[in-house]
Amino acid sequence: MHAKVLPFSKETIDAIAETYPTPFYLYDEKALRTNVRALQDAFSWNPGFKEYFAVKATPNPFILKILHQAGLGVDCSSLAELIIAEKVGLNGENIMFTSNNTPAHEFQVARNLGAIINLDDLEHLAFLKKHASLPELICFRYNPGALKAGNLIIGHPEEAKFGLTRTQLFDAYRLARDQGIQRFGLHTMVASNELDTDYFVETAVILFDLVTELTHTLGIQFEFVNLGGGLGIPYRPEDTPLDLQQLSSKIRHYYAQKIATKKRPPLKIFMECGRFITGSCGCLVARVRHIKQTYKLFAGLDACMADLMRPGMYGAYHHISVLDKLNIEPQATYDVTGSLCENNDKFAIDRHLPELAVDDLLMIHDVGAHGHAIGFNYNGKLRPAELLLRENGVVVPIRRAETLADYFATLDFEAVNQFLV
Amino acid sequence: MHAKVLPFSKETIDAIAETYPTPFYLYDEKALRTNVRALQDAFSWNPGFKEYFAVKATPNPFILKILHQAGLGVDCSSLAELIIAEKVGLNGENIMFTSNNTPAHEFQVARNLGAIINLDDLEHLAFLKKHASLPELICFRYNPGALKAGNLIIGHPEEAKFGLTRTQLFDAYRLARDQGIQRFGLHTMVASNELDTDYFVETAVILFDLVTELTHTLGIQFEFVNLGGGLGIPYRPEDTPLDLQQLSSKIRHYYAQKIATKKRPPLKIFMECGRFITGSCGCLVARVRHIKQTYKLFAGLDACMADLMRPGMYGAYHHISVLDKLNIEPQATYDVTGSLCENNDKFAIDRHLPELAVDDLLMIHDVGAHGHAIGFNYNGKLRPAELLLRENGVVVPIRRAETLADYFATLDFEAVNQFLV
Repeated sequence: MHAKVLPFSKETIDAIAETYPTPFYLYDEKALRTNVRALQDAFSWNPGFKEYFAVKATPNPFILKILHQAGLGVDCSSLAELIIAEKVGLNGENIMFTSNNTPAHEFQVARNLGAIINLDDLEHLAFLKKHASLPELICFRYNPGALKAGNLIIGHPEEAKFGLTRTQLFDAYRLARDQGIQRFGLHTMVASNELDTDYFVETAVILFDLVTELTHTLGIQFEFVNLGGGLGIPYRPEDTPLDLQQLSSKIRHYYAQKIATKKRPPLKIFMECGRFITGSCGCLVARVRHIKQTYKLFAGLDACMADLMRPGMYGAYHHISVLDKLNIEPQATYDVTGSLCENNDKFAIDRHLPELAVDDLLMIHDVGAHGHAIGFNYNGKLRPAELLLRENGVVVPIRRAETLADYFATLDFEAVNQFLV
Repeated sequence: MHAKVLPFSKETIDAIAETYPTPFYLYDEKALRTNVRALQDAFSWNPGFKEYFAVKATPNPFILKILHQAGLGVDCSSLAELIIAEKVGLNGENIMFTSNNTPAHEFQVARNLGAIINLDDLEHLAFLKKHASLPELICFRYNPGALKAGNLIIGHPEEAKFGLTRTQLFDAYRLARDQGIQRFGLHTMVASNELDTDYFVETAVILFDLVTELTHTLGIQFEFVNLGGGLGIPYRPEDTPLDLQQLSSKIRHYYAQKIATKKRPPLKIFMECGRFITGSCGCLVARVRHIKQTYKLFAGLDACMADLMRPGMYGAYHHISVLDKLNIEPQATYDVTGSLCENNDKFAIDRHLPELAVDDLLMIHDVGAHGHAIGFNYNGKLRPAELLLRENGVVVPIRRAETLADYFATLDFEAVNQFLV
């Protein structure tokens, strides 16, 4: 068993858990900034490199404010995400609006913010023009179809609802050019949580070749390629982290060969990582509520699937550390469960852990991305608070826990009383 | 292709959609009452038969008020569900509290309401006594383990976190008896959405035999067996509905053989169906927002996975009717999608439908149970309104749609402004 680095010290968590009731999410500002710098440093050879953080991964304005200050833009997929971005001071080309099956109103809001519009469909150009207005800069999302195998998580690109075919791309940029648009970008996103650098290098090569062809055929210049997100993180102790330097070097090699040799303005590389930035920076802290032995041994937590759905929904692995027993070898095998009346309400199945007792404090690792964001209220369960450990050691509450009043907010109990049956 | 009965007429939906913006859930009071009566009539031979509606399936107080008036009790799994039950006037033995990994506070609330306490673990008897008090009536949940194969949806009972083993059951009732508890029930629940009556008959036989053995061994009398829920509904047009009369007759046969011959007080049969009561009574009404053709043909709706997760989460089938094209044969094959940046945000894959156009009104069938209840806010999407069509034809809004203010309710934007980075 490889060791898994603890994102927070036991003492830190113990101190926080004295003030804040479990379960809670805890994010680490220092780790956030470290991840941001690692990505920026790796691609500093590319003039104009920019990461647009995928808001959906961690839609918390405090987190976004830190990322904005650290030089990131944001990738928004919906009205709510555009509003959060605006509230933390982001606008203009610091926002990429990458949505699909988009309603007119959201295009209007994105245009008002001056966001880069990343269109998911050929038809959306006319739709955008009709309902908002055409921008000076446009981007289209490419779906490589069978050209790219897809990865295990995101499936086959031909089956995906996202993006344009190659033929459509040529039509789309021609149409855009003929309507007077003069600035262009190209985007694709075909992997999720991938640790193999070659996957992204291949994607970069496809985009480099495609902008070259589009430029040649249509006489248009590209300002950027957006390689998408999908950079994975090592959820399991035995996973090898993605080698960012290797990824950067390989992409740089092809950039030199395919882009830099052309007498054209420099092509900026954009990314829209979510998980890679915040995934490892957040953990879910929970306590053991009950131990149960039937056909298997169960540790029931005070957290449940409403707090973190990835294990139940995707079968995702999240490492679990028992804070009081960090130096004790695993002695027993547990299913670590929540309290939903739902069979897949489990954080881990057959997990080897030190012997657990009621009130043991556990840390569930790597939930900083697509963790709190995917919570639900099934069984009337309430979503937890989010806390941020600042670089100066101060803990800031960045989202309060839901209350029953929140859960009942869309119900009118006065009308229920008057309802005659 | 078999026909699928339309729960609402096209005219009804058209009229409602003129007043209420899509997407919305629509429930049918008449169908609700029909389902309730069907179950009650089928088991009217059993003195004391009672259905405890599983609140988690449709946690709407208006719906619960109708079900209560129609003679049902409720099965609650959490604090929020106990509170909803109380708010619609339910209390005492009209409430079954079937939870797992339960916190002390929820036992206290359940005891204060006088609910039947259905314990999930042997250890919970002492926990209940310590944190609340022992009731005069107690029930335990049996997990038959390898004795029962489980069905496809709920998996193998040995893997499930729920219930007690056979050996533990004997210990549990002995312990309860020795502490002065005098009234007893027995529960199990090992299937979900099962259409085969034999599955439930087998379950009933297991419980009938078990109460006989427990009575013989411990000298205690059982007031009820709770056969659980899990009665399925025909989601697909070609599915054969569960034969309720057959189910009832078979169970009655074994009841006569195994229970009625004993010189004991009559044993009440309880059930805790959710889906069987409300599943077919609700639909999700949505409009086509965009049609998209790439490697496949996509119909993007104004609803998304936030409104209905079962297809994306479980691969569940939900029939789709195109209201303006009810008499038109399927001409094309669509993936019917939402607008999330999430690959499995699809209501249907490769579905044969009449040719669709923007603004077409669609009805997604059989979402009355575990539909709205499982919605989330991923990508900042908002959950929809719920409407009820009363028997007198009046439409009553029974839950408003979420707003952005709801989505942002747990965030303090003033604190965001003051947050220095």
